[in-house]
Amino acid sequence: MATLHCMNDEDYPPDLSEDRLFSLVSQIKDWQINHGSLLKQVDSETENSVLSYPVGVSCFPSPLPRARFEQALDLQEIYNKLYCSIAEDEEWIYDTIKDMIASEPLAKALWGIYEAAKDAGHVQDISAGVFRSDYMFHLTEAASVDRWADLSKTALKQVEFNSYSCSGFSHANKAANMHRHLARIGVYDMTDKPFPVDSLPINHNIDSVASILALAHKEYGPPKSKLASKTAILFIVQPYNFNVADERPIEYALWNRDEIVPNYRLDFPDVLEYTKLTEKRALLFHPPWLASEKPVEISVVYQRAGYEAHEYNKAGWDGRLQLEKSTAIKCPSVLGHLTTFKKVQQALTKSGALERFLSPSEVARIRETFVPVHPLDESTEGLEARRIACDPKRSTNYVLKPSLEGGGNNVYGNAIPAFLKSTPITDWSRYILMESIHPPDADNLLVGSACLDGGKTVSELGVLGCCLWQRTKRTTAKKSGTRCDMLQNSVGGWTFKTKFAEIDEMSVVKGYGCFDTPRLVDF
Amino acid sequence: MATLHCMNDEDYPPDLSEDRLFSLVSQIKDWQINHGSLLKQVDSETENSVLSYPVGVSCFPSPLPRARFEQALDLQEIYNKLYCSIAEDEEWIYDTIKDMIASEPLAKALWGIYEAAKDAGHVQDISAGVFRSDYMFHLTEAASVDRWADLSKTALKQVEFNSYSCSGFSHANKAANMHRHLARIGVYDMTDKPFPVDSLPINHNIDSVASILALAHKEYGPPKSKLASKTAILFIVQPYNFNVADERPIEYALWNRDEIVPNYRLDFPDVLEYTKLTEKRALLFHPPWLASEKPVEISVVYQRAGYEAHEYNKAGWDGRLQLEKSTAIKCPSVLGHLTTFKKVQQALTKSGALERFLSPSEVARIRETFVPVHPLDESTEGLEARRIACDPKRSTNYVLKPSLEGGGNNVYGNAIPAFLKSTPITDWSRYILMESIHPPDADNLLVGSACLDGGKTVSELGVLGCCLWQRTKRTTAKKSGTRCDMLQNSVGGWTFKTKFAEIDEMSVVKGYGCFDTPRLVDF
Repeated sequence: MATLHCMNDEDYPPDLSEDRLFSLVSQIKDWQINHGSLLKQVDSETENSVLSYPVGVSCFPSPLPRARFEQALDLQEIYNKLYCSIAEDEEWIYDTIKDMIASEPLAKALWGIYEAAKDAGHVQDISAGVFRSDYMFHLTEAASVDRWADLSKTALKQVEFNSYSCSGFSHANKAANMHRHLARIGVYDMTDKPFPVDSLPINHNIDSVASILALAHKEYGPPKSKLASKTAILFIVQPYNFNVADERPIEYALWNRDEIVPNYRLDFPDVLEYTKLTEKRALLFHPPWLASEKPVEISVVYQRAGYEAHEYNKAGWDGRLQLEKSTAIKCPSVLGHLTTFKKVQQALTKSGALERFLSPSEVARIRETFVPVHPLDESTEGLEARRIACDPKRSTNYVLKPSLEGGGNNVYGNAIPAFLKSTPITDWSRYILMESIHPPDADNLLVGSACLDGGKTVSELGVLGCCLWQRTKRTTAKKSGTRCDMLQNSVGGWTFKTKFAEIDEMSVVKGYGCFDTPRLVDF
Repeated sequence: MATLHCMNDEDYPPDLSEDRLFSLVSQIKDWQINHGSLLKQVDSETENSVLSYPVGVSCFPSPLPRARFEQALDLQEIYNKLYCSIAEDEEWIYDTIKDMIASEPLAKALWGIYEAAKDAGHVQDISAGVFRSDYMFHLTEAASVDRWADLSKTALKQVEFNSYSCSGFSHANKAANMHRHLARIGVYDMTDKPFPVDSLPINHNIDSVASILALAHKEYGPPKSKLASKTAILFIVQPYNFNVADERPIEYALWNRDEIVPNYRLDFPDVLEYTKLTEKRALLFHPPWLASEKPVEISVVYQRAGYEAHEYNKAGWDGRLQLEKSTAIKCPSVLGHLTTFKKVQQALTKSGALERFLSPSEVARIRETFVPVHPLDESTEGLEARRIACDPKRSTNYVLKPSLEGGGNNVYGNAIPAFLKSTPITDWSRYILMESIHPPDADNLLVGSACLDGGKTVSELGVLGCCLWQRTKRTTAKKSGTRCDMLQNSVGGWTFKTKFAEIDEMSVVKGYGCFDTPRLVDF
């Protein structure tokens, strides 16, 4: 039933006259101001005011083969199941990260918290997850003269899988709405070619994240403590976050549901001060700024903080433990958090690893999206990877990534040998080495606080997975091969980010990339 | 059926702890960033970015007697009819402003444009209006000890009637949504008293303004010119407007309607450059930034510019004439524009004036909202008013307002004698003298770019009138007493602004006031 849209615009995006460019960018900035597609200007917030500026966006929707987009969406339920299963597999996680627990502060903190919570005994066997699987499009043949045809010769390759404190969903949702608005009002039309508005997929990220949290909230049931007035979701956030336009819309969506879901924010460092556990470990929230005499019982802890080692000082460590020990459903749990590390991604590329969690047909579909990832440890594979990484020529086709981080701090291509030279060899095993993905060039105009500029661009697609699952009893687990019962396994939406091809890192909030909307193309 | 809400909170708004105040203001600022309750920072806009900051808002909804609120809403249809009738009464308008046409540049420009358009012959007998009638609440007895009781002893008194380029509707709509959100999430609850959420009226300003424009667009019908691709509404705006968060939502609402209403913006100085009239005076819009080869025919001209004399240089004068001469439905016409002047408001207070347009019972209801307004000309009444204005004692109870402006530039109380002393006596007739309205004090906390501060406050209610009307043939008019047939006469919503009592001027965009939401109280 869907209309096919071929990419026959040789002149897309078009060269714009100065008038038309000015009009387009004015429309963009004004739309962003009116719809909260903004970032707070760092250090501008005072008691009474704050400055904000539009987040970077692409001026045009970048083309993306519909088949690749649908493939990524179709894979998400398998990826969801995989990561939910891993999040219940203490043994496999321990085997994967054990070498780092002693040396990596974040791994050490999280594992310590996990063990302490385990010692106390689990009181909640349901967990939630908000995941984002990121992909780029790898050119499988030599680039041709016809640049749009190259799009059809791409394979979907995973950049990383994020399972903790994933962000960008609200911004992606807003950018998708914006590009759709711009398309509809005709700013992308060419004289002889109206822009195909329905080639832009609709995005429901904000509702999807709110829905999975609402479902977890419902699953939690009524308050377990007689002291509590009601149940509510708690957003654990970083203090003075400049990216409230990404977090707050989820809160508003929960308040706006037909069945209102109360929810509150709490700065991560303040967990111990404003929450407490009852004897049966219900998590009570009782900050001085809530008017009710009775505390609120927390049904779901949604983590948007605690992803950096420095957050785990005494207050952070104890606070996270308090959350973890509680009866609240964690989104996600500490084990779920650990699955976000690159080391896990690398371990899953090992022969036989996926088979622990998935059926053979599922394994084949997932493995197709992997690029080779090597450890940089002292294993045989690791030593070979070290040789590649130190070779100025061979290293050009690789990215060096910290094993235990969710993103950023990568070292690219021929910068790797020098970086390793300046890094003590004892620290090398803290990295993994990943083959580069080579996407075809596209063209776009990007606008944001950094610039308004055109050039060769590449894009990254993230798929939002929304999950709720229950830990399977050990005996059942052995039989079925899975470690969890999926109560909800859904594809919530997507993010689509575009940056100039010559820039390595993709980070919109750091100003290196832009939110974009795919213009789906049929071949 | 409505629940009665009495004002029994002696401690409203409550004294907030530092924690609670910080939490409330954070919620406010973040909500505003996410919902476009913002102003652009003047001079911050560059090619690629722009800074914005939250518009001033009250931290709490200010109490307002429900009876006064409903009275103001109920009166609006009569006020609408009155001003639509005046807008078709060339003779009455001319009599009212004729003394100023020679000396006042704005009056001179507008009257000149009107006459030139009339000479060309009228080709459109339908007009639209987006009005705002502003009121304050005048304390009719001495203030009592019980401050909330004073609210019940107030009469509704009109401050001014705005019939041209009225603003603030979108901001008021957003602020109402915000206060409702804050109420619903419990930030206004006291330990023993939940805040009555349904005492906050719902606001539909944005939809209402979009609806009247959409109705006018529909009434215009299909393109009259074969050259045009389609019809659309044209927003005439000021260049580099920092208040796009008030204008743009109306554009978005029109694009978002089930039956899409195309609409575009045009800077007032560029009217001649990007529009032209066909032989039959259809208004064609053909800017270089629209992709279509064919021009768009303008169905409705919505004026958000052209309210200051300096805008009527040659390009402005000719541009406005081009709009006025066209077949487009004007919102409003030049005669409609002239009704916005204070001189008209003053003339309507004269004995017998209202009777020209309204029935006796309507006259009584309207007159009840008038405070005495005097001309400052050389008539008997004017000479008496000059004596009052020059008397340091008697002038304290008056406001001096320019006769021909929509708002601002007022001189208050005992500043009047000195102001007149410094003004050539030949210019005195350019002002009217209005008795002050004395509202009861309320209390609130106001937050905005200027400050976060608490104190005695006063509020102003504006009622949005949305009208579409057809000029009545002269013969019929004489018989019926009315000069127009109302095709649509509706109350679209309201604005509610609050400022500190010691500040005279109410202007949110200048930082003197805040958008507020009435907390309706029953007595």
